Amino acid sequence: MPPVPPSTARVTELSVLDIRFPTSEQLDGSDAMNPEPDYSAAYVVLRTDTPEGLEGHALAFTIGRGNDVQAKAIEVLAPYVVGRSVEELCGDLGGLSRDLVHDSQLRWLGPEKGVMHMAVGAVVNAAWDLAARRAGKPLWRLLAEMSPEDLVDLVDFRYLSDALTRDEALGILRAAVPGRAERVARLLERGYPAYTTTPGWLGYSDEKLARLAREAVADGFTQIKLKVGGSVEDDVRRMRVAREAVGDGVRIAVDANQRWDVGPAVEWMRRLAPYAPYWIEEPTSPDDVLGHAAVRRGVAPVKVATGEHVANRVVFKQLLQAGAVDVVQIDAARVGGVNENIAILLLAAKSGVPVCPHAGGVGLCEMVQHLSMFDYVAVSGTTEDRVIEYVDHLHEHFTDPVRIVDGHYAAPTAPGFGTRMRDETLKEFRYPDGPVWAARGRA
Amino acid sequence: MPPVPPSTARVTELSVLDIRFPTSEQLDGSDAMNPEPDYSAAYVVLRTDTPEGLEGHALAFTIGRGNDVQAKAIEVLAPYVVGRSVEELCGDLGGLSRDLVHDSQLRWLGPEKGVMHMAVGAVVNAAWDLAARRAGKPLWRLLAEMSPEDLVDLVDFRYLSDALTRDEALGILRAAVPGRAERVARLLERGYPAYTTTPGWLGYSDEKLARLAREAVADGFTQIKLKVGGSVEDDVRRMRVAREAVGDGVRIAVDANQRWDVGPAVEWMRRLAPYAPYWIEEPTSPDDVLGHAAVRRGVAPVKVATGEHVANRVVFKQLLQAGAVDVVQIDAARVGGVNENIAILLLAAKSGVPVCPHAGGVGLCEMVQHLSMFDYVAVSGTTEDRVIEYVDHLHEHFTDPVRIVDGHYAAPTAPGFGTRMRDETLKEFRYPDGPVWAARGRA
Repeated sequence: MPPVPPSTARVTELSVLDIRFPTSEQLDGSDAMNPEPDYSAAYVVLRTDTPEGLEGHALAFTIGRGNDVQAKAIEVLAPYVVGRSVEELCGDLGGLSRDLVHDSQLRWLGPEKGVMHMAVGAVVNAAWDLAARRAGKPLWRLLAEMSPEDLVDLVDFRYLSDALTRDEALGILRAAVPGRAERVARLLERGYPAYTTTPGWLGYSDEKLARLAREAVADGFTQIKLKVGGSVEDDVRRMRVAREAVGDGVRIAVDANQRWDVGPAVEWMRRLAPYAPYWIEEPTSPDDVLGHAAVRRGVAPVKVATGEHVANRVVFKQLLQAGAVDVVQIDAARVGGVNENIAILLLAAKSGVPVCPHAGGVGLCEMVQHLSMFDYVAVSGTTEDRVIEYVDHLHEHFTDPVRIVDGHYAAPTAPGFGTRMRDETLKEFRYPDGPVWAARGRA
Repeated sequence: MPPVPPSTARVTELSVLDIRFPTSEQLDGSDAMNPEPDYSAAYVVLRTDTPEGLEGHALAFTIGRGNDVQAKAIEVLAPYVVGRSVEELCGDLGGLSRDLVHDSQLRWLGPEKGVMHMAVGAVVNAAWDLAARRAGKPLWRLLAEMSPEDLVDLVDFRYLSDALTRDEALGILRAAVPGRAERVARLLERGYPAYTTTPGWLGYSDEKLARLAREAVADGFTQIKLKVGGSVEDDVRRMRVAREAVGDGVRIAVDANQRWDVGPAVEWMRRLAPYAPYWIEEPTSPDDVLGHAAVRRGVAPVKVATGEHVANRVVFKQLLQAGAVDVVQIDAARVGGVNENIAILLLAAKSGVPVCPHAGGVGLCEMVQHLSMFDYVAVSGTTEDRVIEYVDHLHEHFTDPVRIVDGHYAAPTAPGFGTRMRDETLKEFRYPDGPVWAARGRA
């Protein structure tokens, strides 16, 4: 078969794999709401007939059961990409995002939330991985080199105009153009600040917590995070253990994973106050904008953070409008992909609220680093009070795993979005028929 | 096989069917956001080995594409019900609801929103259909005869306690105990007030709109509804046509189906104001609590209504806390089933806000009538300013279709939740292999 000229190359296939890791066996990732997560990926591959066999990979992150539902939701989006010109697709990723989000029948299944919206996010992200590989650049750099005009074209301003107009977004992006090159150079030299959740999973012993907390400080981290919300007595003790291990100069964030109602959140945090928690993450339902605002009033000066389960830009808009959060935690695989995350970065920048991405999952560290680095170069222009979560799990399964150097994410240089898993992993961990699962007899 | 004693009977199967109706061909159901809906049901059947072959039926409503994703989501819930004792299941439907909503892995796919939450709702509703049939009562009556204590046990107060405690809910229910019998008698005699959306679909001509509006008034309806949001000039004209057809004594609600941002919603409604719209429904994103509050301030005295796409009780709580709505529109198949709708009825009752259910879909009229009648008998105790939507589509497919008499829903007397489709319908409209679809070659 003769090579296909680049200009006529098309997307030939969208395939989806159900990949699951048996993480529940080690209690890695355990917290008050998620006692036994099996970190999983509804993994999508866009294949093309370009001469070099260009592909785009991405994933929706789940924690086990239901990963097959998530995979099915991605499959039904195939008609939006299969058969399309690679050049046109990569040239109008704003259009792809809008088409997927606003399919008039599929929209009913959200709208813009839950399984169907995460499916849209996975396909949009796979298209971005494709576009970045085609451009030969890491995603953060592809984005950071786009003009403000092209960037706002990527954003769907529907439901945002009472808080952020297209012109305001353009103003934010234009103001950040000077200094882009300097910030790129700084990222390449120093990386982007990280914090680590590795010490603080709820299932770990005090001894393991203290040891991992000390190691984190030795490794250059200036912030760690503890899961809380199981038992207040345990949390007070664990917080003391952690504080004694890291000393006063290191920030300790705590994360309740939506465990509480408003009143109990405030009471619980009062018990932890003597150990100076830095932020309380997900104190209550991610849908509860007014509840977060009430918690924030009740726990100040402790900061309130949320976002990993916030369904879409409309809820983020309100969290900022209501003064409900001190920290916006974007997630690469929860909302409608890169495009919606650019909208959220712009909303946060307009409010002057720092973005500290969520990355506790599989592949999330690999993805969110690109979004934060783009934010630094082209949107907020700063890393002040900004840190990307780092969790030391499952990176070995990726072809371009994140690299942490002295408490910082090293700026990725490989083309793409960082979302590609190794071929061996895709074979071994496929559910239910890969050898890892077949051996466990869970098939 | 000998008959199984009632006390040891079990749920033997959960089966799911993908049922779709080609409604897009007639523009029935067309609106500004949903130009071509194929009304569909991810239809669930719980089978048992009781001697009488007791079954529970329910459905999640979608509008076409993605109904297969919804069906798949329901299937993964089978382990929660299959094999369980019918007696224990029907005796603890609060427990079933909590188990399904809080599955620690499946919860990640929402949480409590979108495809997975609608799947929970379908299974919970099927269990209620089973319980009501087992009791030989229509659902509204089964609920209305329960004690306040048993009713609050059905409710999950998580994330509600800052607005409604268990004790407050108990107080509301106890206050409504006197007069229950009188209200039951009144319902059986007169029914529950309805309004009709039949005249106002966006795809209808002015002539058809006027004719159907006049017919609605002749049929005893005192409120109709028009879809708006396509073109403001068209809407002004259609509103005038409708007002001229029905006169001043009939309420005309309008429904934008989430078409607008906050500012445009207010401007558009100013244009319609000369024709005295009664409420504006879904002016903007269902997630936008603060946006609805702003619209409400901008369009008063026109009322603001929303709810058919509100994901869960936490968002309803905030709509009421923020003074964002004048009318709460529950939906039988969007949230986590009967149990969560009881929570929402209680929240609305505490705030004194009327509940006017959404029913534009297939099977929604059949279901919501039970919830409103229960509300009248045992929660709010009134039908003042309360109407149930009525849409004259697809009722012939149900074994116990709603009956409208003089603009009122006649109180159903057949056992169950009204959700059972005829066997012929389940065969003919199955997608993609039923004869209706096979003939269209869309398979």
